[in-house]
Amino acid sequence: MPVAEVSIVPIGEGPSISKYVKKAIEVFKKYNLKVEPCAMGTVLEGDLDEIIRAFKEAHETVLNDTVRVLSTLKIDDRKDKEITIEGKLKAIGCYKEEN
Amino acid sequence: MPVAEVSIVPIGEGPSISKYVKKAIEVFKKYNLKVEPCAMGTVLEGDLDEIIRAFKEAHETVLNDTVRVLSTLKIDDRKDKEITIEGKLKAIGCYKEEN
Amino acid sequence: MPVAEVSIVPIGEGPSISKYVKKAIEVFKKYNLKVEPCAMGTVLEGDLDEIIRAFKEAHETVLNDTVRVLSTLKIDDRKDKEITIEGKLKAIGCYKEEN
Amino acid sequence: MPVAEVSIVPIGEGPSISKYVKKAIEVFKKYNLKVEPCAMGTVLEGDLDEIIRAFKEAHETVLNDTVRVLSTLKIDDRKDKEITIEGKLKAIGCYKEEN
Repeated sequence: MPVAEVSIVPIGEGPSISKYVKKAIEVFKKYNLKVEPCAMGTVLEGDLDEIIRAFKEAHETVLNDTVRVLSTLKIDDRKDKEITIEGKLKAIGCYKEEN
Repeated sequence: MPVAEVSIVPIGEGPSISKYVKKAIEVFKKYNLKVEPCAMGTVLEGDLDEIIRAFKEAHETVLNDTVRVLSTLKIDDRKDKEITIEGKLKAIGCYKEEN
Repeated sequence: MPVAEVSIVPIGEGPSISKYVKKAIEVFKKYNLKVEPCAMGTVLEGDLDEIIRAFKEAHETVLNDTVRVLSTLKIDDRKDKEITIEGKLKAIGCYKEEN
Repeated sequence: MPVAEVSIVPIGEGPSISKYVKKAIEVFKKYNLKVEPCAMGTVLEGDLDEIIRAFKEAHETVLNDTVRVLSTLKIDDRKDKEITIEGKLKAIGCYKEEN
């Protein structure tokens, strides 16, 4: 189960792009993924196939509303132990309990 | 038809990773894509589905041989006109004829 | 005042890299920056010069302890209005009060 | 001497951004760097300080003409042997003589 970061950037729709980012996040939430929006991209945790399908649908959804899109998917995947958002943040001493 | 850049980086296999990059490029060449290796990643041109399938197979192929992989896919996609490697390089005055 | 994301990845030191990420975060904290570690990179907010100096020092610090480093700096900068981590998260409806 | 890839993307100036990319490349050429424009970014080879100064000036130059810019700098740096664009391409069997 990898952890990924996705960024979907419409180019040519003016400098404010939050409405497109919101639409992409709505797409991610339809999938069986943990979704954590960060300031420079959205972090996803879950099955590789789900992540890739969610990325593709978000890319196509934003491109549908715009003329040009620059989309980035970064995947961190390992076999020796489970990889999670919580585990990655705990390993660097930066996990925050939220509740 | 988007243009994309892919980078597949094994972490924890020593500092020399060219044999893994070669394997990823072999995977890309099995698909119906234009494949242009650059110094910091491999540029792909073709159908979005083909690009995503090639990226996923290259990621899984390198992870199969290693413990941890950091893979990045960057897609530049537009609807108003065709996007190609050649067209992008010509637009910035940097296209080189190769033959 | 831009917002940035930094990732410093040592290659060839084994698959566990959290001790290097921690060292990079310690470097960032010496600068006059807001530092927010995320699962796939560390988000920085502050002056452009400070961000670039912090990135360079973190890159050199990790390279000092290792053989090969792949470092990424992504900067989101705009002139029409102030850009902050809080503002970016609020714009997409994802800001969480922390106290 | 690291090898780097830089991408400077103006957001909000319409979907055609080649004139800004050209300006960034002109900036890179003022520095003591090998400059290789690729379809998804410009590859730079040279001293770390030169690369970082060139990146900062290109970012500021494009931001000067636009409202919002998303700039990315990726640096591949190693201590065990010299790293060059030519060496990286030769290692994966993809170096092309140009003359």
